Amino acid sequence: MEHKFSIRVYYEDTDAGGVVYHANLIKFAERGRTELLRFLGFENKSLRENQGILFVVRHISADYLKPAVLDDLLEVQTTVIQLKNTSLVMKQSIYRNQEMIFTADITVVAIDAGSLKPTRIPEGLRGGFQKYFKESI
Amino acid sequence: MEHKFSIRVYYEDTDAGGVVYHANLIKFAERGRTELLRFLGFENKSLRENQGILFVVRHISADYLKPAVLDDLLEVQTTVIQLKNTSLVMKQSIYRNQEMIFTADITVVAIDAGSLKPTRIPEGLRGGFQKYFKESI
Amino acid sequence: MEHKFSIRVYYEDTDAGGVVYHANLIKFAERGRTELLRFLGFENKSLRENQGILFVVRHISADYLKPAVLDDLLEVQTTVIQLKNTSLVMKQSIYRNQEMIFTADITVVAIDAGSLKPTRIPEGLRGGFQKYFKESI
Amino acid sequence: MEHKFSIRVYYEDTDAGGVVYHANLIKFAERGRTELLRFLGFENKSLRENQGILFVVRHISADYLKPAVLDDLLEVQTTVIQLKNTSLVMKQSIYRNQEMIFTADITVVAIDAGSLKPTRIPEGLRGGFQKYFKESI
Repeated sequence: MEHKFSIRVYYEDTDAGGVVYHANLIKFAERGRTELLRFLGFENKSLRENQGILFVVRHISADYLKPAVLDDLLEVQTTVIQLKNTSLVMKQSIYRNQEMIFTADITVVAIDAGSLKPTRIPEGLRGGFQKYFKESI
Repeated sequence: MEHKFSIRVYYEDTDAGGVVYHANLIKFAERGRTELLRFLGFENKSLRENQGILFVVRHISADYLKPAVLDDLLEVQTTVIQLKNTSLVMKQSIYRNQEMIFTADITVVAIDAGSLKPTRIPEGLRGGFQKYFKESI
Repeated sequence: MEHKFSIRVYYEDTDAGGVVYHANLIKFAERGRTELLRFLGFENKSLRENQGILFVVRHISADYLKPAVLDDLLEVQTTVIQLKNTSLVMKQSIYRNQEMIFTADITVVAIDAGSLKPTRIPEGLRGGFQKYFKESI
Repeated sequence: MEHKFSIRVYYEDTDAGGVVYHANLIKFAERGRTELLRFLGFENKSLRENQGILFVVRHISADYLKPAVLDDLLEVQTTVIQLKNTSLVMKQSIYRNQEMIFTADITVVAIDAGSLKPTRIPEGLRGGFQKYFKESI
């Protein structure tokens, strides 16, 4: 199972090369992770304020396959390919129509908002992530 | 009549003050204008590539009324308050629930993509803008 | 007297129209205000953490005169044109060589980081702003 | 030999987590690459307009080691760790004082601005990159 989220490309996302600026695809991936969280019943703001938990990016391995351009309607597909106590790896691919234009493995770590040390992913959220777990190939 | 478009606030939109960074509300307004164009049957990319027309911002007068924060669901409401041969003024207000948090009058000019000189707004588009015209008060 | 600060245009600042995206000139203005603060011996981070003061933008009136493009070296010139107890208006103009390409009057308010209510601008900083005061014409 | 370039952190770079938003460090790396190009006598704009060459990012492998915060003065250090006919890999590390907070291997490809196919890196530029070549360890 994978989570899907649609994103429209605006002028703000593009650069003078006529394509979506490469770092902005990293932003699109984060929107996809945030919407997966929301779909699982969690929001970044309340996770931080009520549970004292923050997710931070530890590692990104990203491949840029095709350019995206102004007015494109993209789809971010997100699955979980590794799930540990305090961290997880998500595979996030961005498609235009059926064509993959970007794919990344992104490691995020749950940290305690006070100590900034790694902390356990809350159980309810872990259960949700498990539904999106997919053996990586 | 006004055009309405919803925008979710992500981490990328916020700053270390804990609120949406002020310049990003200007970006949200542009998304609203772009979606009004799209709703009227026009896209920035084809306007430029097929009709040689580009809309550029000439003037912004913006009031920041309340901060927006992470995970907010905002609504951009757009009307046209002045419509000339080559330019128009839009009033764009951003709401959270029923509360206005930002409002701006934004003057955009149609320019020829080659000469970069002002050019007439295409008739079909002008007709569309007229439906969103609202006497400013 | 005016404060001057140089900014280089990178791909991230431009859009598919081939120019600097309009909202990014608003960001450049904020860099100019931040560097004026720093030059006067104040930093946003310590103002907030040590003095509990945050500057927020209340109003922007901006004119876009000429486009800026990739690799341009721009200069932000900042003066204070109004100085009140809890707020001030800065005139910020951006130049490429001797040509003004953007100018804005920007109202910022000092707020208490806790209550989020307007608060007096610290005396030391007020004295600094006064040196950059210029009768608006 | 490595190229060094300083970057100040502004509000626009940070997020509501109080740190520099992760995708913005990818932008900082691009500023470093652009300044290395400029130091070698090349600019993105003239490379594209006069020589028909565009550099695009193909792959990023990035590690986030420590957070950067508002008002930090960072240094981007760039070396070339692989140099082929049409592509190169740069190692870019970002430091605060002597501490590395981010490091990435970034593969960029020279493409023909017309056909969008890989093309040879211009000789003059290749010679420049060679001076920054460093055996990766």
